[in-house]
Amino acid sequence: MEGFDPVATSLKLELKPPKLGDNRSPEKRLRDGLVQELGQGPFHLPIHIARSLPGILSAADYKIQVVVVKDVCGWRICSCEPQSESVKVLGLAVDLGSTSVVFYLVDLHTGEIIQTLSKENPQRIHGEDILDRIIFAQRGGLQRLHKEVLELFNKSASQMCTQAGADTTEIFFMTVAGNTTMCHFFLALDPSHICKEPYIPAANKFDLLSPQDLGLNINPSASIYVLPNVGSYFGGDLIAGILASGMAEREEISMLVDVGTNAEVVLGNKDWLVACAGAAGPALEGGILSCGMRAQPGAIERVEISPSDLSAKIKTIGNQPPNGLCGSGIIDLLASMFEAGLVDQTGKLLVERAPSRMIKVDHEWAYIVAPETETANGKPVYITQSDIKNLIRSKGAMYTILNVVIQSVGITFEDIENFYVAGAFGNYIDAQRAITIGMLPDIPLKKFKPLGNSAGQGAIRVLLEKDSLGKMDRICEKITYLEMNVRGDFMNQLTGALFLPHTDLSRFPSVTKRLELT
Amino acid sequence: MEGFDPVATSLKLELKPPKLGDNRSPEKRLRDGLVQELGQGPFHLPIHIARSLPGILSAADYKIQVVVVKDVCGWRICSCEPQSESVKVLGLAVDLGSTSVVFYLVDLHTGEIIQTLSKENPQRIHGEDILDRIIFAQRGGLQRLHKEVLELFNKSASQMCTQAGADTTEIFFMTVAGNTTMCHFFLALDPSHICKEPYIPAANKFDLLSPQDLGLNINPSASIYVLPNVGSYFGGDLIAGILASGMAEREEISMLVDVGTNAEVVLGNKDWLVACAGAAGPALEGGILSCGMRAQPGAIERVEISPSDLSAKIKTIGNQPPNGLCGSGIIDLLASMFEAGLVDQTGKLLVERAPSRMIKVDHEWAYIVAPETETANGKPVYITQSDIKNLIRSKGAMYTILNVVIQSVGITFEDIENFYVAGAFGNYIDAQRAITIGMLPDIPLKKFKPLGNSAGQGAIRVLLEKDSLGKMDRICEKITYLEMNVRGDFMNQLTGALFLPHTDLSRFPSVTKRLELT
Repeated sequence: MEGFDPVATSLKLELKPPKLGDNRSPEKRLRDGLVQELGQGPFHLPIHIARSLPGILSAADYKIQVVVVKDVCGWRICSCEPQSESVKVLGLAVDLGSTSVVFYLVDLHTGEIIQTLSKENPQRIHGEDILDRIIFAQRGGLQRLHKEVLELFNKSASQMCTQAGADTTEIFFMTVAGNTTMCHFFLALDPSHICKEPYIPAANKFDLLSPQDLGLNINPSASIYVLPNVGSYFGGDLIAGILASGMAEREEISMLVDVGTNAEVVLGNKDWLVACAGAAGPALEGGILSCGMRAQPGAIERVEISPSDLSAKIKTIGNQPPNGLCGSGIIDLLASMFEAGLVDQTGKLLVERAPSRMIKVDHEWAYIVAPETETANGKPVYITQSDIKNLIRSKGAMYTILNVVIQSVGITFEDIENFYVAGAFGNYIDAQRAITIGMLPDIPLKKFKPLGNSAGQGAIRVLLEKDSLGKMDRICEKITYLEMNVRGDFMNQLTGALFLPHTDLSRFPSVTKRLELT
Repeated sequence: MEGFDPVATSLKLELKPPKLGDNRSPEKRLRDGLVQELGQGPFHLPIHIARSLPGILSAADYKIQVVVVKDVCGWRICSCEPQSESVKVLGLAVDLGSTSVVFYLVDLHTGEIIQTLSKENPQRIHGEDILDRIIFAQRGGLQRLHKEVLELFNKSASQMCTQAGADTTEIFFMTVAGNTTMCHFFLALDPSHICKEPYIPAANKFDLLSPQDLGLNINPSASIYVLPNVGSYFGGDLIAGILASGMAEREEISMLVDVGTNAEVVLGNKDWLVACAGAAGPALEGGILSCGMRAQPGAIERVEISPSDLSAKIKTIGNQPPNGLCGSGIIDLLASMFEAGLVDQTGKLLVERAPSRMIKVDHEWAYIVAPETETANGKPVYITQSDIKNLIRSKGAMYTILNVVIQSVGITFEDIENFYVAGAFGNYIDAQRAITIGMLPDIPLKKFKPLGNSAGQGAIRVLLEKDSLGKMDRICEKITYLEMNVRGDFMNQLTGALFLPHTDLSRFPSVTKRLELT
């Protein structure tokens, strides 16, 4: 990676030995050498290094290698040794998700990611749902949740370092991006008020921590930076996304959406940012659908419906026999069914269009996506009428949230230059399909930009751009947070969005034209 | 004390409780409250306080009392509790001398010194002389010297707090001013190179320390500030003097001198500072004189010689029977003897002027200051010819050091507006007498200003003026340090100063006129 400016770095310094007329102390000599390399610090020199400095300087003949780490202001001197080719300075960026935790071990000399490790969040045994874990925490489980995630961190750091031929003491900086609740568990902060009105986290911004504050086995002089949140439902993972997209540094207006059970949205540019989060419902992630599943091998991620026989052509993750539908497959499916005329604009399943593709499940009709002969477990994968209604409710909520945010600043979707879709799920969404069902706005496809794992990317970017720390604070200060749960216009607007793509077809001109809707 | 701005303070804050539309976190709410009171911090919030904050805010109905301590940049939040009248915020200023350690317990709410305690430095058992202690440190004794002084700090802090009805956990800031070696012992820094060419301390500037760094039993969130030095022989005690005098903040030129075995000098104003230290010899403090002693009860501190019978009229410390001569008495004595014609300009004792006041001691003549019938131990107090020669050498060295510093910046003594005499000994010097023997320059007496215990005063001032921390760094950066030991002009100039008052009488016009010298 070119042109990066990491939060921790090692410098080779060749200091002048003392002589008559230059009797600066080892401490002063070191600071002067650092000023030449890094500009006016200030440089914080811990007393244990000050104590060992005179001996190291003379043993190393004043040719030393110093590791410095970005501090609250200036730099902290974390190690000072004779020069050596083997000095490693590593950073660990963590995407702390409620389902998976992804670790990126970064070589801060080269800017390269040298190891990536994805682990299941061990807290899942206390509930898949975040709310279940908050309740567990309130009932005395906070310390346990805290310990579980820290153990995972320590184990993962150790495993990655071993694989990379490194040592955990070579990790000098750690960045953690997660949603507000996950960060509260990580820091053992009380999450009780996150989920009840008026939805208050214990803290929005976290100062740099030391490994001793948390019991992390990395370099004892390292810093740990947990990305800030701006509310209970707008966490550090989203702030990481804002950073990773660069939207808060540009003139043009961008929108960033994390698509999931909760829809988190931010709109703005370098001068202003409006953020909002609201419940879209779990259907989009497959949560409450009859045949919904996580994005795992065997999940149907792509669907097209054959115009000739109205059968579904599917693609599964890992090309395994299908097990169920994951998020991107669900959106594909609904869009394809709508295009193929298998559902009407109200979401009604038109059974008569293809009776042979339908079955009855618990007294209601369902469309067969994969017949039992093709699936892994010998049961068909299908979507019921109720599933479709749930899906439409979720996609409608998503669109409405976006629209409320847009209206709150008096612009239209046409004013948006970049539409970033964030989150592990968002990454796989086919924008055209999402527009077709009226989930995302009908703007030119080229404006849609998947961000990939934006939380992880943002966390990595903090490691590689030391100015990000201050930038992050400025981003948070700039954000105006709209409380969607208490906005009356949401419910009014939602009604129109409970159609495919919308009751107001003028909002979806490309879909209207392509499907000749009236 | 009026108009002070302490390094640690407690603030009563009445924060607004959260409501819909204002769901700032407790952390953000606290920071916003502090910004209103103290301006843009930044405020460093340790994680343990962030954890307890939500509970405290609701228990205290958002009326809280916060203790903040000046940090590297901004403030550190050190405690947050429900409001109470009994919250104390104390500071401890320490004058860390090689002989005595003086502690000042300061109420940072009122600015008042509520307890003062002077203790013997326990390191004296390893040698009165600093050099002896450095050698002891080099032979493996550093940790012991370190522990001894820390134990003294802990015991003294505890004793003072008990007497003040306070608790050591109410001490939130400690400032320590001492010479370079004493500060090295305090911090367990290697002092080996302080006393050998090119005279290099292990460190000049010390970052804020925590009580855990040193094992000090004060508030665990407190900061410890050790005043910086600018060289082996120009320590934090002198820097404290510069601060206490205010000389580095004014337009006019001032000179500050710490008179002792080592003469430490600083000259300058708000724009520039030149510092120098040189050996004046131990004679001025009574160190090597036949009847010299420390300034303790029974020490002769004032001497006048009767013009009629040439006997000495003396005043002792505590009006006790005399035991010997301390520094101020020695200067008085030599000046009086010179005025009375008992010594000539070369320092020769004129025995024939008062044979009855003279005795022979070890084959040389001596003047009797106090006859055996009047002394505490039944032995006479006297000054020998060799003592006088030693004294003249020391006073000559002192004057020469001052003169070299003055010449180094191309000014004369007349350009000096304030002449500060610092140090416990300097405080008692009669300036007119010191001029008479040619130890201090012949400038108007009103320009001489004793500074008292400047180290202690400077340490207290840091507690009461939080900007002093930055000011101190700027003072140190401004100082140009002259290495007296290696300056050739010193030896050349010294020769002329080995007379009373000087071979060049035009330098001492008031003395020349008064004593009608030729």
